Order: sequence, then structure tokens, then C-alpha cells
Amino acid sequence: MSRIDGRKNDELRPVEIIPNINKFAEGSCLIRCGNTHVLCTASVEDRPPRHVPEGEGWVTAEYSMLPRANRERSRRDISKLKLNGRSAEIQRLIGRALRSVVDMKKLGPWNITIDCDVLQGDGGTRTASITGGFVAMMLAFRKMIEAGQLAEYPVSGYVAAVSAGIVDDVPLLDLCYEEDSSAMVDLNCVMDDQGRLIEIQGTGEERPFTLDEQRQLVELCEKGILRLQALQKEILGL
Amino acid sequence: MSRIDGRKNDELRPVEIIPNINKFAEGSCLIRCGNTHVLCTASVEDRPPRHVPEGEGWVTAEYSMLPRANRERSRRDISKLKLNGRSAEIQRLIGRALRSVVDMKKLGPWNITIDCDVLQGDGGTRTASITGGFVAMMLAFRKMIEAGQLAEYPVSGYVAAVSAGIVDDVPLLDLCYEEDSSAMVDLNCVMDDQGRLIEIQGTGEERPFTLDEQRQLVELCEKGILRLQALQKEILGL
Amino acid sequence: MSRIDGRKNDELRPVEIIPNINKFAEGSCLIRCGNTHVLCTASVEDRPPRHVPEGEGWVTAEYSMLPRANRERSRRDISKLKLNGRSAEIQRLIGRALRSVVDMKKLGPWNITIDCDVLQGDGGTRTASITGGFVAMMLAFRKMIEAGQLAEYPVSGYVAAVSAGIVDDVPLLDLCYEEDSSAMVDLNCVMDDQGRLIEIQGTGEERPFTLDEQRQLVELCEKGILRLQALQKEILGL
Amino acid sequence: MSRIDGRKNDELRPVEIIPNINKFAEGSCLIRCGNTHVLCTASVEDRPPRHVPEGEGWVTAEYSMLPRANRERSRRDISKLKLNGRSAEIQRLIGRALRSVVDMKKLGPWNITIDCDVLQGDGGTRTASITGGFVAMMLAFRKMIEAGQLAEYPVSGYVAAVSAGIVDDVPLLDLCYEEDSSAMVDLNCVMDDQGRLIEIQGTGEERPFTLDEQRQLVELCEKGILRLQALQKEILGL
Amino acid sequence: MSRIDGRKNDELRPVEIIPNINKFAEGSCLIRCGNTHVLCTASVEDRPPRHVPEGEGWVTAEYSMLPRANRERSRRDISKLKLNGRSAEIQRLIGRALRSVVDMKKLGPWNITIDCDVLQGDGGTRTASITGGFVAMMLAFRKMIEAGQLAEYPVSGYVAAVSAGIVDDVPLLDLCYEEDSSAMVDLNCVMDDQGRLIEIQGTGEERPFTLDEQRQLVELCEKGILRLQALQKEILGL
Amino acid sequence: MSRIDGRKNDELRPVEIIPNINKFAEGSCLIRCGNTHVLCTASVEDRPPRHVPEGEGWVTAEYSMLPRANRERSRRDISKLKLNGRSAEIQRLIGRALRSVVDMKKLGPWNITIDCDVLQGDGGTRTASITGGFVAMMLAFRKMIEAGQLAEYPVSGYVAAVSAGIVDDVPLLDLCYEEDSSAMVDLNCVMDDQGRLIEIQGTGEERPFTLDEQRQLVELCEKGILRLQALQKEILGL
Repeated sequence: MSRIDGRKNDELRPVEIIPNINKFAEGSCLIRCGNTHVLCTASVEDRPPRHVPEGEGWVTAEYSMLPRANRERSRRDISKLKLNGRSAEIQRLIGRALRSVVDMKKLGPWNITIDCDVLQGDGGTRTASITGGFVAMMLAFRKMIEAGQLAEYPVSGYVAAVSAGIVDDVPLLDLCYEEDSSAMVDLNCVMDDQGRLIEIQGTGEERPFTLDEQRQLVELCEKGILRLQALQKEILGL
Repeated sequence: MSRIDGRKNDELRPVEIIPNINKFAEGSCLIRCGNTHVLCTASVEDRPPRHVPEGEGWVTAEYSMLPRANRERSRRDISKLKLNGRSAEIQRLIGRALRSVVDMKKLGPWNITIDCDVLQGDGGTRTASITGGFVAMMLAFRKMIEAGQLAEYPVSGYVAAVSAGIVDDVPLLDLCYEEDSSAMVDLNCVMDDQGRLIEIQGTGEERPFTLDEQRQLVELCEKGILRLQALQKEILGL
Repeated sequence: MSRIDGRKNDELRPVEIIPNINKFAEGSCLIRCGNTHVLCTASVEDRPPRHVPEGEGWVTAEYSMLPRANRERSRRDISKLKLNGRSAEIQRLIGRALRSVVDMKKLGPWNITIDCDVLQGDGGTRTASITGGFVAMMLAFRKMIEAGQLAEYPVSGYVAAVSAGIVDDVPLLDLCYEEDSSAMVDLNCVMDDQGRLIEIQGTGEERPFTLDEQRQLVELCEKGILRLQALQKEILGL
Repeated sequence: MSRIDGRKNDELRPVEIIPNINKFAEGSCLIRCGNTHVLCTASVEDRPPRHVPEGEGWVTAEYSMLPRANRERSRRDISKLKLNGRSAEIQRLIGRALRSVVDMKKLGPWNITIDCDVLQGDGGTRTASITGGFVAMMLAFRKMIEAGQLAEYPVSGYVAAVSAGIVDDVPLLDLCYEEDSSAMVDLNCVMDDQGRLIEIQGTGEERPFTLDEQRQLVELCEKGILRLQALQKEILGL
Repeated sequence: MSRIDGRKNDELRPVEIIPNINKFAEGSCLIRCGNTHVLCTASVEDRPPRHVPEGEGWVTAEYSMLPRANRERSRRDISKLKLNGRSAEIQRLIGRALRSVVDMKKLGPWNITIDCDVLQGDGGTRTASITGGFVAMMLAFRKMIEAGQLAEYPVSGYVAAVSAGIVDDVPLLDLCYEEDSSAMVDLNCVMDDQGRLIEIQGTGEERPFTLDEQRQLVELCEKGILRLQALQKEILGL
Repeated sequence: MSRIDGRKNDELRPVEIIPNINKFAEGSCLIRCGNTHVLCTASVEDRPPRHVPEGEGWVTAEYSMLPRANRERSRRDISKLKLNGRSAEIQRLIGRALRSVVDMKKLGPWNITIDCDVLQGDGGTRTASITGGFVAMMLAFRKMIEAGQLAEYPVSGYVAAVSAGIVDDVPLLDLCYEEDSSAMVDLNCVMDDQGRLIEIQGTGEERPFTLDEQRQLVELCEKGILRLQALQKEILGL
């Protein structure tokens, strides 16, 4: 069986990260994973939320899809006066993933907001947001270092994310929308650059899955994340 | 090292499920896992949401904490005009977990709403909601069978859920609130009664975790879920 | 004519008040009046609202029904983004009733929130909330005295409430749901333990009522409230 | 003791009802009770709410204060995204009061909305709204009769309302704002033109009140309502 | 061709401004332009919004229509939880227009809120709100001068507004509702008393319009505004 | 005096329109006017709003800025639960402008939604949205013609828009953000391709302006709009 776009089972879609896409944000990039395009900006402000200990910083994320990011137009959250439940879930995930490698004491009294706005969605928007959001965050940290607001990058490692899934009983890396729509199982991994898990979320969409299948999917993700982190390093030039 | 409440590392908190706790709901139970108490009701209505194919049914869940379920009082969602992001995430999880074992064609044109209201929360409220929500749903199906609305239980298996976590580098089953607060890693599993995964969600709260640690946590969960499903079967008498 | 549940015309439904039902709240009880079950918690916080004079305290109440408290499931307020008008009215009543016996200067700079959540509703939920809310409040005051936050109970008397109504032209005490549904007139009284009125609210649902009928209903309520206050005193052991 | 505006204890403030104040509404009036001015309009639409039996009608009310109706400007509900709790309570009262004399079967399939907008508030706005709202409703019925939409007035009697209160232990009729602010007890009555109660709401603001005091307040209200209904009859010319 | 109400093409509807219509507001008037009636109040508070430089003041406006101001009843904003888009646009216009003649430094640390509530709408409500809002603002300034809060009127000139439109290819001043409904082009002008523009908003409702037509409409507005400002001066007696 | 970016007084910023930027929308473009970047998509749906006569179509617009489109991050509308007043005003303008050239009868029973999302804002976002929105709409019409849903373009002409303003008493075309911030007068024109006005909106930000100044600004806009329409024609190849 061949994949709809001719990829091998463990092959990522073509990925492109265009840094500094936004003239005003302290850090930004446009990440394109196949037809999924996410604009990530990092904004630096000087008021962390109240629950943060005095002198420490915070990283938070917001995620949204433009109304026509998808095959059908969806109504804006504001016209329904409700934050989309799926968006609420995803932005909590992005925030947790990025915070996991940031040392809030080293960051000092700054609040970093990562906005991930999906311009076009073709599957894998949440993982693209994490991979691109990390780059935007690092670019903002670089600007803060240059401005003397930070002494060094307050991070303990790289973060990237990808999905894998089981389609017709075959484990595949980085599902596009068509594959995702017919996937039996869907699993997202967020990992650091030592191959350790930061987040894992797996769902049996059409059927339960065995522990062995779960292991295979994580291993596929591990391969993809390694390549995404190589690209992040290349872009950041660190 | 001994646990705060003297349990063994692979031991559940005392669990109690009181069926039919609500006089009006088609199905209901109160589930108590230690000091976590969740009231689960299943309501049968005859209008599935619009996206459901004609003639098929649907199962959805809502999750909420009473204002004083916790150590500190929290404001009601309605006073902030926003559904809590955490609640939004959890009720999506409960809904997916329960739907995974329901045959919507067999269910026919009924809409089942599972309300999980946390009367008291001491860790593990989302997994208790799934375990208790399944019982409430099955009791509603029983009433529908008795009323001739269903020919048989439209389910393919049992569903239960539990959490495990790593505290001081030790994997522990079914964290209570104090343990959860200091956990390095927290992982929830939803499984069917053949030991297959329906959902897995793991988060490195304080540090990343290895694939091996992840495996150990899943195995702990598997043990706990087996016991929870034995209790479900006893309560349901099936 | 006999009542649907065999009670005498001036007889209360069986009442039970279980104190300290919630592990975390400073004061709490579950009050059951027949099939009406209300969970009442009292939370002590240190920031009274702004309109309160410096150094004085405040007591406020919130009232809500769980979605499946009733014969039919109702949507949560948050899904409609509107506080139910009936709930708004009831929680204002509960707050006024409890404040009427509290000396805000003696209370000092504390804010007491009484949450009344109806687990099951079968008529008389607002009056049960007042009767149970008073017990929860007193239990919180006791804890504050024990903690040295208060020197004495800052109250001038007991507060309890009950309804009466006219069904088929006969005045009856403490209507259950079926009686309430067919009542011509419905009247709620809140009284102190000297038989004085704190609140009176009467409505001619199906027909107007004479001043004499109004007097008979108040006298029925007086009888019931006396018995409810005896139970409150027994529970509180004061 | 004399009253702040020189009235006798059982004397109403000067009342004026200007009918047909609005060019577009089917019925309307401006009611002035002293410095309290309420604009009441009755709108006839052809879609009663869903809960109304086929072929029957409905009467509902909305109540709101203009931002500068009072001594201090208050924010509009929409800027807080919340219907004021007091307004919610009052509009429910107005609706119940007016519906109590309307025969919904005779009204037929029409929905009547009574809007009561307080242009200036100096105490007694809810009772003025009921008294004025009844006139607006009757004027709308007249227009419907003239248009052949109704055969006759679908009402069983007149409805008017007034408040009374205890100030410095003296019962007074129709409190103005200054009196209301210092009242110990405040009681509103809605009555029909046979001296029967439709609604009674009494509150011990500063102290509880005896059954005898409650009786005196109702008798004061009865006097005032008689005079208000005489004015209603004169205006309506029926 | 004659106009529906017999006016000449460059004739205003009868205008009446009743000052001090509200007992509590620092400044107020009721403006009637034909059948358009707007209640304007000016409220003085001591907290300008945060974006205002320390020591300076601010003027802001709110605009709303009563539900039955029009031929058909419209729902209140609060029942839809959304500020009407048209109202949002209009109140921004009123605020800009009034601020354009106020010296915020001379005003000092006061916040002036102009509430424009349309009691009855028959075309031209936004321009009537500006003309009447200016009078209410000036009356409030007078009271502030009398109270010693201001040394002089902090304004650089008069502000009034009117609309003109093209109906059946004929330019007409001050359209009433029927004319407005069939207008091809609609244009509003706000001017000072030296004939200079403060705001101009023109819309080709049914067809585009030439620069020459635009000029003619502005000239019509200029004539009308001159007369409105004469009335303002007469009312204010300055 | 030379302009901040060296342009002549009647010179547009560099303009670029990239058509078909979005894979899913029926029509789309990215318009760049200097540093102002707006993503415009046109979505075709088959349910025009209720107020539209049977068989006719409708065109509506939504406008929003991404949180970090500007020099400072702004909060999303949904986090404040309020549609930004400025956005409400702008999207009404865009909708009116585009509808002015569409024949709704020729369009037939289709609803076209133009989403204008500002990725980066540097002045002139509303006029860029109109110019780009027209292109997106025309591209959607082309697709509908190709699909046989339309027989021809249901439009009577081209629509484009630009701003002009007075800075230091000098009239300038197409203000960028820095110019706009210090403009005394700001004026937007929407015109068709026969040099006729569709909308004109002028505001005296810092001072009133004479009729002669207004004329000069409109003439500047006319020049710019001619060039923008030439670009639109080139892109559309019509």
C-alpha cells in the first residue's frame, strides 16, 4: 500500500520554517508542514500572570484557526462567544510543551505569549504549532539576549512534536488530513532532543490499540522529531 | 518509601460505586475513589446533534467541579462567562472514551448525555468520571432495554480509567492530590476489558520521561483498570 | 382529601441534615427534604466585596441546579452563557435571608460564600437552601471560633424557611413537586426563631388569593419553620 | 413625624400616566410616580415562545434602567455581558403579575412583550412598571380589537402595584428613594381590583417584622392600589 | 416633487431641545427632530480611562435604542450578549465628534460619559445624538464651573450634525425614515461653528455618487448645521 | 518636506496582490501594501441570511487582526468576549463596499463571506481589506462560473479603496502607520472604476478641516484608487 501523497511510512511531509516572518513580534516564524501552514509569533511583555512567583517568568500559548483554514469555513469563536473546546485543549498542550524546557527563574520577570494561528490546516496543526512555536520563542529569547534582558537562553533543550497514526492497520508517520480522517488510531508525541517524552496523547478513534501498537507509533514519532529538531537547529544556527 | 496514605505502589485508593443515586436520571451513580467523589448521571433524549447520520445516536459528556470541590473555592464558570479550559479538555476526553465502545447504529436515534459533577476532588477526577460515567451509561441502557427502546446493550466492551505517576522517581498507581501535586510525570490511561488502550495521555510535569518509564506507568494503569472493571461488572451484575 | 404522599396538611416532608459532608469547606451540610437534596457549603475568604465598609464582613450566596436535578435534563448556564433568571432571583433571596441575622461588624473582615447546589429537586429547593445554608454558615463560624478568627457566633438568631400553598382550595405545608405543579397559590416564608418574618414571597399562580388565605399560609409556614429550627439546633448542638 | 416630601403616611406620590407616548408601539404609556419615570411599551408579535400550547398566547416583560436613571451612573448590562440580577428578578415579577389576569386562550396566538425602561428612578420602579405595564398592555389589546385580531379584552381584571415600608417603626405607603434607603422593612403588593393579592414580597431589610406589621403594610398597599386602579380606569376610559 | 412631510429640500424637520430633562445627571436634554427622540445625559465621574495621560480628562459616548424605538421591536443587546454592530459604530462616531472640540488638558481629571438613548427613532438618530449630546455635555460643564471643578468651558467651538441624502436623484436635507429607506445616497456631516468638517461619512446605498453630488450634500448639511447650532446657542444662552 | 519612507505626496506604498494563496477557499489573495499584510478569503455557502429575499444572494465581511499584527500584542476578542468596536465598524464598511457593486439577483442563492485577517498592520488595513477582498470575491465568482453555478460575474464594476490624510498641513496619499499616528485629518475613499464614490469617511483627528481640504484629499484618493484598480485588473486578467 502506498500513501496518498507517495510518502514512505516513516517519512515526514516537506517541512519549511521561515523565521522572522513578522516585522513587529520579538520572535516569529511561518511553519509549513505540507499544506498545513501555521504563523507563530512570540510576544514579550513584562507582566507574568499573578500565580507566578515574584521574579520568575511564564510562557503561555494561544491557538486559533482562521475561519477558512479548512475545507469548510467555520465561524469565528467571537461570533459564538465561546472559545472552541478543541482550541482550548490544544493551546493548553502547546503551553505545557514549551514550558517544559524553560527555566522560569532564568527567564526572570517576563511573560512570553506564543500565538499560533493556523492559516491553512491539513492535519497536524497542533504538532506544527509546537515545533514552530519553539522556534518563535527561541528567536524572541535571542532578541532579549541582544537587548541585555537575558544573559543566556533559559532553556534546557529543544522541543518538537509530530503525530503518527494507524491507517488500515499500518502505522504511518505525520498524517495529512485525508489519512487522519480515516485513521483508526492517532497519537501525538512531544519530545526533547534526548529522545525523552514531554507529552504523549493517543486516541483510539475507530478501535482500541495494543501496547505494542502504541510502542510502534512512539518510535515512528521519535524518528520524525529527530528530523524536525535538526531543522530547528539549522534555522536557529545554534 | 511509603505512600502518604500507606498504600502499596500498585494499589488503588478504596473505590465505591453507588448506583442509582439520582431518582430522575435514566442512569446514575456516585463514584468515590478515596476523597474524590463524582456524581455521574446519564440522560436519554431523543435529539442527537445535527452532525450525526440519520437514525444513529450519540454520546456526549459534560464535566464540572462544584465551586467548593477543592481546597480553595473557585468561581463558577458562569460568573466568568467562560467554560474552564481544563473542564473543556476533560469533557472531550470523557466523551471520546465512552463513545469508543458504543455502536452508534445499534444505539439508534438517541442522544445520551453523561454529566460528571465533581462534589469533592482529591486527584483523579477525570479518570473517576470515565469509570463512573460508564456505569451510569450502562444503567441508562438497561432502562432503555426494559422500556423496549433498545434490543441489547449497544456496547463492545467495558471502559475504565486510572492515572499513574512518578513521584520522587518512583512509579505509583492512582495518585491522590498530595502525590499529584509533587509528581514529576503524570499519565492517564483509558482501557477496554481486553487490556487495550482507548486513550493515553502523559505529561512530563517536572521533567521529561523515558520510553521505559512510560511503559511502566501504562502497566501500573493496566493493573488498576482490571480491578475497576471487576467492580463495574459486580455493580452492573452482567 | 389526602395528600399524594399521605402527609397531613400541616406536616413537613421527612427532613435530614447531614453536617460536614464536604472535607474541604469550612462549613457544609447535605439537606434532604423528601426527594429534594441540596448540598450547602460555606467558604471563608478574606476579601469582602468592595462596597463593604472597611473592617466589616459580608455573606453572599450562589444557587445552582445540577443539569439532571430534575425530571428533564436542563442545559448548564455556561452553555447558554446566561445565569438562569430563576437562579439569579433565588440566590439573591438566600443571601438576604442569611445576612438578616449576621452582624457584619462582629463578623469582621471575612467574606462568607454559601454555595447551594441542588443535587435533586422535588419542590422547595429555595427554602431548603436557606435552612441548610444557615447550618453550613454556622459550622463555618464554629471553625472560625476554634481558629481564633471570631470571638463568638456573629448572629442574632436562627433562620429557616419553608413553603406553603393552596391546592384544590386547601392550604398545605411544604409542597412537593407534584403538589407545587398544581398549586393555585404558592407562598414562601423565611423566619427567625421568634416567629418574626424575614422574607415573605407569595404568588397567585392560578388565581388571586385573599388576605385571609395569605394569613393561613403564613401560619402553616410558622409551624413548619419551628420544627426546622428545632432540627437545626439539634444538629448544631448549641 | 412628617415625611420628607410632606405626604401623609397613607398618601401616594403624585401619579401621572401619559398614554400613547410612543408612535410605533401597539400600546404605550409613560408613568410618573413622583420622580420615578418609567416608559412602558407593549409590542404585539405573532410568535409565542415554544413552551406555549398551540393556539394560545403569552405575555412577557423586560425591565431595564437607563445608565443615568439614578443618582450615580451605572454601567449597561451589555458592557458587563450580564443581565443585572435585580433586573432579572423584577422582570420575572412584572411578567407573572400581568399574566395573572390574562386568559391565554382568549388572547390566541399572539406574543405580547411589555418593555419597562426606567428613565428616572426614585424608588418604586418595579411597582410603577406593573401599574404602567398594565395600561400599555390594555392599549395594545384595544388596538388588536380595533384591528379585528381580538374579539374582546382577554383579561379578568385590573392589576396595579405599590410598595409600603416601615421607616423609624412607622408604616408608610409608597416609599420614595430617601425613605426606601432607610426603611427597616419593605413590602410590595400586586393586587387585582377586588382587593385580592396577586403577588406579595416583603423583606426585613434592617430587622425582622411581625405578622401584625405585615398586615398593616398590606392594608396600606390596598389603599394605594385602589387609587392607582381608579387612575388606570380613567386613562383607559373603560 | 414634494417631500413626504411637505418640507422644502433644504428644510430641517421641527427640532426641539428640552434641557435638564433628567433630575440626576450633571447635564441632560431630550432632543426631538421630528419623530426621532433621543434622551442625552452627561455623567461626570472622576476616573478617566487608563490610556489618558495623568491629569487630563476624557469624553466617551454610549448609544442604544430602546427595544421598541422602531416600527418593529428589536431584541435587547443583553439578550443576544452582543453589542449591536451598528451601535458600536455610532457610539464611536459620537465620542470622536464631541472630543474634537474638547481640550482634555483644560478638562482636567474628569471622565464625561454621554449616554444617548433613542426613545423613538425615525431616521437621523446618530446626528441627533451628536447635536443633543453636545448640549448635555455643555450643561454638565456649566454645573462643573458652578461647582468650581472647572474654570471655564473647556471647548473650542460648537458641534452639531445632520444628514442629507439623494432620493430619486434629488438631494434632500435631514431625511426622515421613509426618505432614508429609499435613499440612493446617504451622507452625514459633523461640523463646528466655523463651517469646518469634523466628520464626514457618505455611503452609496443604491448607487455610487459623483464628487459633485457629494459637494451638494455637504452644502445642504452646512445649512442645516448652522440652524442647529443657532438652536444650541439659544438653549445654552451663551 | 519629504515623507518618512521617501515617497512623493501622491505616491502609494508598493502594492502586491498574491492570488489563490489559500488552497481551500473558493477565492483568496494576500494583499501587501507596504508593511500592511492582509489575508483575504472568499467562502461560498448556500445559505444567505434570513433577511435576504428568496432566490437572491448576499455578501458579508468579517475583519480581524491577529494578536501580534501590531507593534504591541493585543488580546484576542474571544478572551474579552467582545468583538472589538473598531473591527465591528470596519467589517460593516467592507461588506457595504463590496455589496455596492454586486447584483444580488444575478448572484442567486449564494452567501459569500469575505474574511479579512490582518497578519501585519502598518496603517491602511481597512482599505487594503476592501481592495484585496474584491479580488478574493472575484476569484470565487470565477470558480463559480467554471462550476456552472453562475452564468457571468454578477458585478457592475471594480471596487478599491485607499486613505489620504493631512500631516503637518500637507495632504498625503496612503498614510503608513507613523504618518497616520501624527495625521491631523484622515480620510478613506472607496470608489468604483468610473471615479465615483461608494463610501467616504473623513475624520478631523487633531483639527477640523475645510471643504477645500476635503476636496484635495478625495482627489489624492482618486489617483491612488485608479492605480489599485489597474493592479486588480492585471491580477484578475479580465
